Amino acid sequence: MSALAAIHGKKYPAKDHARRVFHHYSKNLNHECAFFISGENLELYDYCDQTKPLRQNRYFYYLSGCDIPGSHVLYVPKTDQLTLFLPDLDEEDVMWSGLPLSREDALAKFDVDDVQFASDLKASIEEVSKKVEVIETTDINKWNEDVRLLIRENNPVFFEALDECRMIKDDYEIALMKHAAHITDNCHLAVMRAVPIEHNETHIHAEFMYHALRQHSKQQLYDPICCAGPNCSTLHYVKNDDEIDPTRRSILIDAGAEWSCYASDVTRCFPINGDWTKEHLEIYNIVLKMQQVTMSMIRPGASWDEIHLEAHRVLIREFIKLGIFKEFSEKELFELNISAGFFPHGLGHLLGMDTHDVGGRPNYEDPDPKLRYLRLRRDLQEGMVLTDEPGVYFSPFLLKDILKNPATSKYIDTDVLDRYYYVGGVRIEDDLLITTDGFENFTKITSDPKEISRIVNEALKKDASDFHNVV
Amino acid sequence: MSALAAIHGKKYPAKDHARRVFHHYSKNLNHECAFFISGENLELYDYCDQTKPLRQNRYFYYLSGCDIPGSHVLYVPKTDQLTLFLPDLDEEDVMWSGLPLSREDALAKFDVDDVQFASDLKASIEEVSKKVEVIETTDINKWNEDVRLLIRENNPVFFEALDECRMIKDDYEIALMKHAAHITDNCHLAVMRAVPIEHNETHIHAEFMYHALRQHSKQQLYDPICCAGPNCSTLHYVKNDDEIDPTRRSILIDAGAEWSCYASDVTRCFPINGDWTKEHLEIYNIVLKMQQVTMSMIRPGASWDEIHLEAHRVLIREFIKLGIFKEFSEKELFELNISAGFFPHGLGHLLGMDTHDVGGRPNYEDPDPKLRYLRLRRDLQEGMVLTDEPGVYFSPFLLKDILKNPATSKYIDTDVLDRYYYVGGVRIEDDLLITTDGFENFTKITSDPKEISRIVNEALKKDASDFHNVV
Repeated sequence: MSALAAIHGKKYPAKDHARRVFHHYSKNLNHECAFFISGENLELYDYCDQTKPLRQNRYFYYLSGCDIPGSHVLYVPKTDQLTLFLPDLDEEDVMWSGLPLSREDALAKFDVDDVQFASDLKASIEEVSKKVEVIETTDINKWNEDVRLLIRENNPVFFEALDECRMIKDDYEIALMKHAAHITDNCHLAVMRAVPIEHNETHIHAEFMYHALRQHSKQQLYDPICCAGPNCSTLHYVKNDDEIDPTRRSILIDAGAEWSCYASDVTRCFPINGDWTKEHLEIYNIVLKMQQVTMSMIRPGASWDEIHLEAHRVLIREFIKLGIFKEFSEKELFELNISAGFFPHGLGHLLGMDTHDVGGRPNYEDPDPKLRYLRLRRDLQEGMVLTDEPGVYFSPFLLKDILKNPATSKYIDTDVLDRYYYVGGVRIEDDLLITTDGFENFTKITSDPKEISRIVNEALKKDASDFHNVV
Repeated sequence: MSALAAIHGKKYPAKDHARRVFHHYSKNLNHECAFFISGENLELYDYCDQTKPLRQNRYFYYLSGCDIPGSHVLYVPKTDQLTLFLPDLDEEDVMWSGLPLSREDALAKFDVDDVQFASDLKASIEEVSKKVEVIETTDINKWNEDVRLLIRENNPVFFEALDECRMIKDDYEIALMKHAAHITDNCHLAVMRAVPIEHNETHIHAEFMYHALRQHSKQQLYDPICCAGPNCSTLHYVKNDDEIDPTRRSILIDAGAEWSCYASDVTRCFPINGDWTKEHLEIYNIVLKMQQVTMSMIRPGASWDEIHLEAHRVLIREFIKLGIFKEFSEKELFELNISAGFFPHGLGHLLGMDTHDVGGRPNYEDPDPKLRYLRLRRDLQEGMVLTDEPGVYFSPFLLKDILKNPATSKYIDTDVLDRYYYVGGVRIEDDLLITTDGFENFTKITSDPKEISRIVNEALKKDASDFHNVV
């Protein structure tokens, strides 16, 4: 059954979100209040008449479920009244853009008590602000100089309440995220089946985008990372336009479709001709073990810091076996942060309406380099969605300090290390929902190296013209 | 021969552009000056760590040929010195994004006399500004509070000089635009061949994007317009997600690939099953005649206003023949602006680094509704690139005033008109370079209705799996 079937006929639960946010916020509240949030509006690029792509304000969407540019939402807890304000009808724009959603259609579509228009906004805010404090959360001051005077400055306690609520996903949000993950599964499968006959990184990108768009996912929350060979060692490589060297055949694709403002975020790696080289497979299996070990630790209450550090321990043990690390104690290698040169990023991050979703409380100033880029620094809670994405990279830039400093270089056998640079890097990334006693994996596309080999080899046997249209 | 072969090994002529702009500007100048322009920088979306898509500032690109975010350019006419300032190396970012272009590589790549870094900027500007007036054209005040004080406000005379230069394309720019047009030809052909087996507008969009990306065109200067049936009457329809009703089989796609910041902009229409309906073909042939007649008038010195109005006259004559207009004089129908209800937009606009390129001097307040949306209001000049894109639409919204008002409705036979609504609309759009004695058409994809029919019918005969990978 499709993930969307679970929410068929239901509305995005904006009202419930508003109530939850108020509940959170009002814990510390000694006076009444109302919330007001403006959505994003269309903006022109400087010096031309082209509008910038719209990315709806996530806080606005959370309290409205509405993606129409130039809208606003007001929640008054005292009366439990959620009001959506749509942009006023622009007669001239109808010729270019067609008729906008009517008030009636909007009431039927969105989980709000009332729909008004932007021209009603000033009076509504004035009326409400006579009785309670109104909290602004977005840039209404850009929008209307008169109204601005009635609105209080951004409020960090309110933002915290929003973030804590957004961090724990409800059933509706889970259905949206499962659907995004399902689209992404199809796209990754399409890439594995199509790319073997291609010769440039841009073909990976094109294949992913094509299949996402065919499934009505018009946006990705982040730019797809499509690379081959040593380019895989650049973590956020988005150039995606090098020729693929068939002798350096490792492919990495990190890309996720968006569905109704909710993200997926998945990485898969494979050998372009289906046959793993010795070194590529060795590294792949280490990353897979890092993911398997860390997944086995995931449950509510577990420390994500600890799980992340366990991934480093797996890397160290496996690198000792490969001979890249000369045989010293695991503890020494761990404390000298040498593994951070090969696994420089965090094990995973919260995922939701943002790729790096709110509530993670990262500390980019952490003195421990192993933890500095970990974007989730909290114990796991039921209802969180996060990525588990260990990686191993061979980047001369990332290793230069370790190899230059005798205190660390003495632990590394460069003759062995040199054999692995051509692989570039491997990352495996799945999207997980924390459940009562463990997790549910939204990501179904295989990460089994034998199965991947089979898919690619099967694709190679087919006629070139069969590679498209898997969806 | 590929259009790019003509500029192989050559650099984007930034220096020549700088000289031309100064020449234009200095006509009215009684003192010395220098030009300083900042390119676009990467910006984060509000409340998250995701960067917005970058669209390079066109004026900056014109004087540098550089697409690197966070760069600046300074031209000192007195010494004829063009200096590019690259962003300072961000060590931490190398891990995520890889190594940036070196100073040496930048000198080899760009047509500039010197390459420095952003940290050198303040001293350079101070040095130059001791001797001459420095004209700012972009938001350096966002960038550096100290430098801002040295810089003069935006200067409309300088902008005019930039626009007049940008309006007339040189050989290098023409090569880039021909290549963009060539990519777009391939994409439109792919759509004609693939869409007949599809059933949703989003498939048109996916097909275009896929083939553009495969050809390394990652952006379109404007959102593709992909529609079927009555949706074709919405001029800037970008929803692109309706099911295609096989009984209303008119398809319209208006989409163009971008190449190195230069645009193409092409519209084609076709019947999804290859067979034109009577009404669809009648309207298509009218639009084709509007384009043929107007093209025949194109040469340096011709008035684009006049050519645009001639398209209205063709429409009127043909609508009288069809019986949609009851037989009154052409002159009456023309003066009552009735044709503007069916052809509401301009015949074409300048094209270049912007879709609606600079220099057109439109007058959106023009009392004549036939001319109000015409974005080019000047006589044609050699070196201009513009679109010729007549259209005919059947939009109840656009026609409602004409049909309500007895003074105009009496000219329209609604029984005949009603037979055409299902077509939605037809537009045919080509990109033309004005030459010494006429024009060169960059757009090679056929607009012949018989040839289109042949392409679609041939595609239908093939196996479904053959539809992809035309490029």
